[in-house]
Amino acid sequence: MELLLKNCAQVLTQDKTRNILKDTDILIKDGIIKELGKNLSTAGKIIDCKDKLVMPGLINTHNHLAMSLFKGYGDDMPLDRWLQEKIWPAEAKLDDGSVRYGTLFALMEMIKTGTTCFSDMYLSSGAVLSAARSTDIRGFVAYGMIDLGNPEKTESEIKEANLFLKNFKSDKTGLIRPMLGPHSPYTCSRDLLEKTKKLARKNNLQIHIHVSETQKEIDDSIKAKGMRPVEYLNDIGFLDKNTIMAHACHLSEDEIALIKKSGARISHNPTSNMKLATGGAMPLKELMDAKIPVGLGTDGSASNNSLDLMGEMKVCALLHKFADNDPETASAQTVLDLATIGGAKVLGLEDKIGSIEIGKQADIILIDLNDTTMIPDHNSVSNIVYSATGSCVDTTIVNGKILMENKILTTIDQKTVIEKVKEFASKI
Amino acid sequence: MELLLKNCAQVLTQDKTRNILKDTDILIKDGIIKELGKNLSTAGKIIDCKDKLVMPGLINTHNHLAMSLFKGYGDDMPLDRWLQEKIWPAEAKLDDGSVRYGTLFALMEMIKTGTTCFSDMYLSSGAVLSAARSTDIRGFVAYGMIDLGNPEKTESEIKEANLFLKNFKSDKTGLIRPMLGPHSPYTCSRDLLEKTKKLARKNNLQIHIHVSETQKEIDDSIKAKGMRPVEYLNDIGFLDKNTIMAHACHLSEDEIALIKKSGARISHNPTSNMKLATGGAMPLKELMDAKIPVGLGTDGSASNNSLDLMGEMKVCALLHKFADNDPETASAQTVLDLATIGGAKVLGLEDKIGSIEIGKQADIILIDLNDTTMIPDHNSVSNIVYSATGSCVDTTIVNGKILMENKILTTIDQKTVIEKVKEFASKI
Repeated sequence: MELLLKNCAQVLTQDKTRNILKDTDILIKDGIIKELGKNLSTAGKIIDCKDKLVMPGLINTHNHLAMSLFKGYGDDMPLDRWLQEKIWPAEAKLDDGSVRYGTLFALMEMIKTGTTCFSDMYLSSGAVLSAARSTDIRGFVAYGMIDLGNPEKTESEIKEANLFLKNFKSDKTGLIRPMLGPHSPYTCSRDLLEKTKKLARKNNLQIHIHVSETQKEIDDSIKAKGMRPVEYLNDIGFLDKNTIMAHACHLSEDEIALIKKSGARISHNPTSNMKLATGGAMPLKELMDAKIPVGLGTDGSASNNSLDLMGEMKVCALLHKFADNDPETASAQTVLDLATIGGAKVLGLEDKIGSIEIGKQADIILIDLNDTTMIPDHNSVSNIVYSATGSCVDTTIVNGKILMENKILTTIDQKTVIEKVKEFASKI
Repeated sequence: MELLLKNCAQVLTQDKTRNILKDTDILIKDGIIKELGKNLSTAGKIIDCKDKLVMPGLINTHNHLAMSLFKGYGDDMPLDRWLQEKIWPAEAKLDDGSVRYGTLFALMEMIKTGTTCFSDMYLSSGAVLSAARSTDIRGFVAYGMIDLGNPEKTESEIKEANLFLKNFKSDKTGLIRPMLGPHSPYTCSRDLLEKTKKLARKNNLQIHIHVSETQKEIDDSIKAKGMRPVEYLNDIGFLDKNTIMAHACHLSEDEIALIKKSGARISHNPTSNMKLATGGAMPLKELMDAKIPVGLGTDGSASNNSLDLMGEMKVCALLHKFADNDPETASAQTVLDLATIGGAKVLGLEDKIGSIEIGKQADIILIDLNDTTMIPDHNSVSNIVYSATGSCVDTTIVNGKILMENKILTTIDQKTVIEKVKEFASKI
């Protein structure tokens, strides 16, 4: 199956040299970028891109998709009250059906705003998996685990995780992959973390875990374990290149060295961290200097309250310029890298996605250069990061398949999803 | 002339009690909100609002409209290099024609994203004035002044200011009003500031001035004048209720007391301050506690790079939660107030705009409740501030006149404006 993106006005390749191509064709065959050049032809579908900026699809490395059901349900509250008074009681009302539609609603927002790959961690993983597969987006579904130190729960979580993996039948596209998602070092026992790591190593899987989100977590860890969270994870042999740590707002120099040595990766969630006032900005500059892979995430809609990575890129740049008191830090190009090739590295997919290069999978978005936010065009990377929002995306392609064309979704029944989400929301 | 907004699903009135009305009609006659209630009728135009959230138009209290021509032209640079290497050389190429189209382009973006009142300070005020009037938006055009301590320039600026006021013929709508815009206490001599204040008092005009944007400005002021900038302005009798200070990032307790006593007002520009790393957040909580009027501004597109106040509200909330390390500060309602009734107070128009109340002028926007960002609807104020972007605005009304309906602009020839902006941008 072929698809030709014809006369692309600009292609932000995000390749090694960050090359920007002008007036270029992109030929996609069987989901793979086959050719980049002029005057290419095809017997397949052609999209006229003469008014389009073409770039790699955005990669959202940390999410709780179905929490889109709780968007706006509790804001402007401290994390502990927010969880205890709002989120946990609401989550008690979830079932597979509501998780399915919450997931689809989140993916709808993502596809509309140019995200082509997600990494989720939540409940009812089976429902998440089947919802995600139905959309043909790319992503990772983690089976989320918490034992709060209860040994019976440890055993049941590991049993459930094994079941999740056993039932996880790969389909031929391989678009959705499994992960394991122990919630955090403070909600999971050492036993659960060790057993999860063993299971992950046996199955060659990545682990997605919250680490060092708040100052309180650091203080509690030192009090309980005599170590900071990353030191503790290193101590129990948990850190390796298959470990993805979400947040990591509070890292000591020694911890950054431990992360570097282990090969672990970071998902940065600037809006969520600012909104929940987690007490400090993730040390982006230090992590970049150490060449540790960092990607961007929105976190769930309950703590952001948007899944639009275009907006997230701007907040990311603003946060670090403010926190470092340096207008030159977190440049537009740096931040665009986080949301594309950086995210691909975090997810271990840098050979497959994150840039537009021959041989890579065709995860590509088209942006309308006639959108007010893209005019004037002194610097299109700057326009993408500082001016645009996800609403300037008009076409989203994953693995060569069009999931949205001219703002019309092709794989999600938007009307039904919205009805179901409204119905569930009215009950909580 | 009548306009009836029929069956509004929700009306965020932003009145004193922040009342939210459901299933309400709004009758507008000759630009004024005449009735709020059920089953109203009209012989005039009717807009069906059963899927709309209806709210006061947003108010942008600090802008340099025509700098939309320089959006993305210089980013990720320190303020001094940005001005010297990028902005000043580019501004040298401006003329009335380019300022006209830059202004129209900015107003286009504002109307599209729900802004109904602006406050501008720039060059070529005549061109700004005529462009703004042609759109039927509400706003203030300030004649911008700088003398850099040169007495000849002081005289010529005051002469030009007089001429600007003389030529400023009010039209019958009174939508566009004049202000005086001495750039700042560090670029204007004491003589210029005093003469400007005198001229403003004589004509009962407001003054729009940059104050205490960067730490360097504070340090330089103490060195040169033995006083901080607000102390200095107070000392020379410059502060009163007709003084609007943009930025005000760095304020001492004493300065906050001086502002309070004088009645002066503040325009807060969070994105611009973060992007340019001005060295600290405006003390929002302290200013609110002192009940000093504070409004929101985007600053110009060269330092933001967006004029979308929906996005600005989110950045504002995030900044203060982060800076104060407090998730409860800068709540969604607080921030919505800044962008509506707060802005009206700053501009001295709290009796006319900023809320939807009988007798006020009809500056109203309609938001599509079927937009993904507005679903689910646990809390519409939260959705507006944390989830929505300006792209969910579909209709913008100023003084009872529709400037955009279903995303179609009615007073601006979008195609011509875009062509002219692209043409000028290609020359710098």
